Amino acid sequence: MDREGALIERFFRDLGAQRDDVTICIGDDAAVTAVPPGYELVLTTDTLVAGVHFLAGAPGRSIGHRALAVNLSDIAAMAAVPAWALLSLTLPEPDESWLAQFAAGFGALAREHRVALVGGNLARGPLSVTVQLVGLVSTGKALRRSTAAAGDVLCVTGSVGDAAAALAMQLGRLADNGDPKLRARFEYPTARVALGARLHGLASACIDLSDGVGIDLGRLASASALRAIIDIERLPISAELAAAAGEAAWQYALQGGEDYELGIAVPSARVPELQQAALAAGVHCQPVGRLVAGSGVELRRANNVMQFSSMGFDHFAR
Amino acid sequence: MDREGALIERFFRDLGAQRDDVTICIGDDAAVTAVPPGYELVLTTDTLVAGVHFLAGAPGRSIGHRALAVNLSDIAAMAAVPAWALLSLTLPEPDESWLAQFAAGFGALAREHRVALVGGNLARGPLSVTVQLVGLVSTGKALRRSTAAAGDVLCVTGSVGDAAAALAMQLGRLADNGDPKLRARFEYPTARVALGARLHGLASACIDLSDGVGIDLGRLASASALRAIIDIERLPISAELAAAAGEAAWQYALQGGEDYELGIAVPSARVPELQQAALAAGVHCQPVGRLVAGSGVELRRANNVMQFSSMGFDHFAR
Repeated sequence: MDREGALIERFFRDLGAQRDDVTICIGDDAAVTAVPPGYELVLTTDTLVAGVHFLAGAPGRSIGHRALAVNLSDIAAMAAVPAWALLSLTLPEPDESWLAQFAAGFGALAREHRVALVGGNLARGPLSVTVQLVGLVSTGKALRRSTAAAGDVLCVTGSVGDAAAALAMQLGRLADNGDPKLRARFEYPTARVALGARLHGLASACIDLSDGVGIDLGRLASASALRAIIDIERLPISAELAAAAGEAAWQYALQGGEDYELGIAVPSARVPELQQAALAAGVHCQPVGRLVAGSGVELRRANNVMQFSSMGFDHFAR
Repeated sequence: MDREGALIERFFRDLGAQRDDVTICIGDDAAVTAVPPGYELVLTTDTLVAGVHFLAGAPGRSIGHRALAVNLSDIAAMAAVPAWALLSLTLPEPDESWLAQFAAGFGALAREHRVALVGGNLARGPLSVTVQLVGLVSTGKALRRSTAAAGDVLCVTGSVGDAAAALAMQLGRLADNGDPKLRARFEYPTARVALGARLHGLASACIDLSDGVGIDLGRLASASALRAIIDIERLPISAELAAAAGEAAWQYALQGGEDYELGIAVPSARVPELQQAALAAGVHCQPVGRLVAGSGVELRRANNVMQFSSMGFDHFAR
């Protein structure tokens, strides 16, 4: 057997969940899976590049986890349930210790969410990981960004800014207080899959918060042809972030990326119901603003309107 | 709009085929597509890395074409029909002229095969392209590598070795005779999609020839727990390859990768029927050997048995 095939056999066969709907798995030219009647496919892909999305030297376990988590988050934002993943891993040398760590991180998260790893490839090159994830959603029930209505309340799950603060510590831009919870929020983000699957018939629109609350809620508003008003004092800030960043915490919360929380638009009368669904899914859901007629994003603090030139992470604008 | 989003809008929205089964396309957190009843999904992914799978400075149009073609070839080998693609493009700088060329190459091939580009992402990093392709096949009809039978004839479509010779010319390892046909076989490979879709109920097993006839027919034999006997004098060699490589042509044919032809196992009585189906799909199909009980690969030339230590391309063994 060739080396690439041997590495795939050793590290990636049977790595994810075992699913009855996988007819042909790793080892053929392509995988084959069965789609249950009454469901549509939800397809997404995301790439992590060394030196761009993670620091050279980041633990393999974290990269494996994050490469899947960022895609799980997209599936959650569509109110879908993840099913099958493909993995493309490019690495300079087949470092078996790193591969074992990477596989452990990817595999644990895949099994937690019943995701089967059905295929992929290894190539030699600069370290980068691309995952494609296919989910299932009842036909017609996928949740878009573009279907919010004026008057809807904007909510955010969990807490935001933690990952950005942890990254700033690693980059030496923020004093590192050694808080492992903050660091874990960057290295092992939690995609809100359990809540996503409860959103249909409840939320009117949803987006995953990968580039920062400001920019991402702005995208939801723009897609829905509305104006977002965000009350930055209501952004959910963890005790860890407040302790680490003090007065600057709200800036991390607003502008920091890599949160993988959900930004949800919901009719105002249904906010309590959404919060109940979130609690049942194990996460808090905090109203942070609302949508009104118009365009753009308006930030309010103590009822003053603020403006910011840059509100998040843009791959080609840094 | 952020720069990444603007580039995606400009170069990739509406790039592929328009399909009625795409419910949500580029611009949301994920794409949504409808699967017709009675079909299974066929999923594959492949990555091209600059400096590994193509030379730095290779034309963007060729990279766009090849990134899709290598995946189309996997779908064809499963006897499936391609439907939806995701594209992850990592590049050092958003060079708009290169992006336009890349999109032209990808888009033309996607439209030719009715493939919709439903999502993807752009990231900054070393140049590499990952495409994920989802195809459809009638339930239970996907063609495997592992289902060949002893006595089956091994056939190869088109001609093999052309791409390897063209690459050798670019690398200065073979005298460059300037033949544009040979060069096009490397830069713009033709995936045998039309034939792939005609193979069910006819072929007993199939594999796409990406790493070389020797190694890939060996994989088919191994997956089917059989021994492959390849008569190297019967390998289909183009007039262009013969002119360029002379006596060494058969080595390119046997050992060269990047052909993206199909290797097909077929019951001997049905070889004429397969050749007829191939002609109807616009390609020749040449018997090159057979499968027998045992294991491994046996190469024959003028009825002598030969042995080779290396028979193809292995990403981690060069």
